[in-house]
Amino acid sequence: MKTDSESHLRMTQRRREGHEKKQAAATHEKGLLIVHTGNGKGKSTAAFGMAVRMLGHNERLGVVQFIKGALHTSERDFLGAHPMCDFVTMGDGYTWNTQNREADIATARKGWDQAVAMIQSGNYRMVILDELNTVLKYEYLPLDEVLAVLTARGPEQHVVVTGRHAPDALIEAADLVTEMRLVKHPYKEQGVKAQKGVEF
Amino acid sequence: MKTDSESHLRMTQRRREGHEKKQAAATHEKGLLIVHTGNGKGKSTAAFGMAVRMLGHNERLGVVQFIKGALHTSERDFLGAHPMCDFVTMGDGYTWNTQNREADIATARKGWDQAVAMIQSGNYRMVILDELNTVLKYEYLPLDEVLAVLTARGPEQHVVVTGRHAPDALIEAADLVTEMRLVKHPYKEQGVKAQKGVEF
Repeated sequence: MKTDSESHLRMTQRRREGHEKKQAAATHEKGLLIVHTGNGKGKSTAAFGMAVRMLGHNERLGVVQFIKGALHTSERDFLGAHPMCDFVTMGDGYTWNTQNREADIATARKGWDQAVAMIQSGNYRMVILDELNTVLKYEYLPLDEVLAVLTARGPEQHVVVTGRHAPDALIEAADLVTEMRLVKHPYKEQGVKAQKGVEF
Repeated sequence: MKTDSESHLRMTQRRREGHEKKQAAATHEKGLLIVHTGNGKGKSTAAFGMAVRMLGHNERLGVVQFIKGALHTSERDFLGAHPMCDFVTMGDGYTWNTQNREADIATARKGWDQAVAMIQSGNYRMVILDELNTVLKYEYLPLDEVLAVLTARGPEQHVVVTGRHAPDALIEAADLVTEMRLVKHPYKEQGVKAQKGVEF
């Protein structure tokens, strides 16, 4: 009978070999189209984490925030103040506060124009389009037009798109898609309000 | 027949009312036990994003990283250099490189002792236990002991636990659980290697 240590050794060896094999097969770099979607938390926060890493590597970063909520002010302050980051916020509060579809479409268009300028300039190693999925879901921008710009970007440029309800065609075009799935949430279940650090 | 604008107006009104009702019901603050799990990306990155927010609010933060990978060095550098953050890294590479279960258990215990000291000191508004789920999955630490410490923490302290395979009992005890679910990943599908900013 094998001891625990022996079977652990075999397991860790197999894992290490699998890990090394995968790393050896991964030989090239390319700009990735990254999508964070789903009804859970962490979509924008994980994108923000990548932003900070990018800045840590001294790479230029562009961010267009399509929906400015009341929250996330500390991210905005942090990124907005960084010399290697260009940060643009569109949208007046949550879009459903404007109660005017035409105004929302105009706002989305303004944000998208800035995003296109960032993407096509070739000056940014990463461009984050925060809540673009939401804009696409409401059909404030034509999906075909957005996909055409995203897929024609420079080969080394990463684009990160966040928001619930990522369209199927965007998921199809993407290299890396993560669904943040809500398992439990204290707002609904316990009446806990938004808190410093956790939500904003 | 209603115009698009009229139906949009009704929809946005309903949404706003729902949002306001939910906010009104959410009246109190409490320290949350937060879990990021699942096979997708963004578990540690989203925790790191919360860490940066916490520091932006000038709140003290503790981080114990149970498994130090080759990656995430820019996070370590950023948090480790911040005067309001105490950052501890345990583990010698991925644990499956050590090939020795007894050594892995000793390393896990060392990290846990530091985590307990942080949690029980009451000095930290947030404590991040990065990859603790992985340690629990391999049974390097007794789950009961970990849960007892987490649930007895101060009422205002947030604890964030990351890693695949969160144990059911931890999910049960948690206030906020998000599963990061892998939808598409370029490593496996395209042979793309880990890249600056995206992975490290």
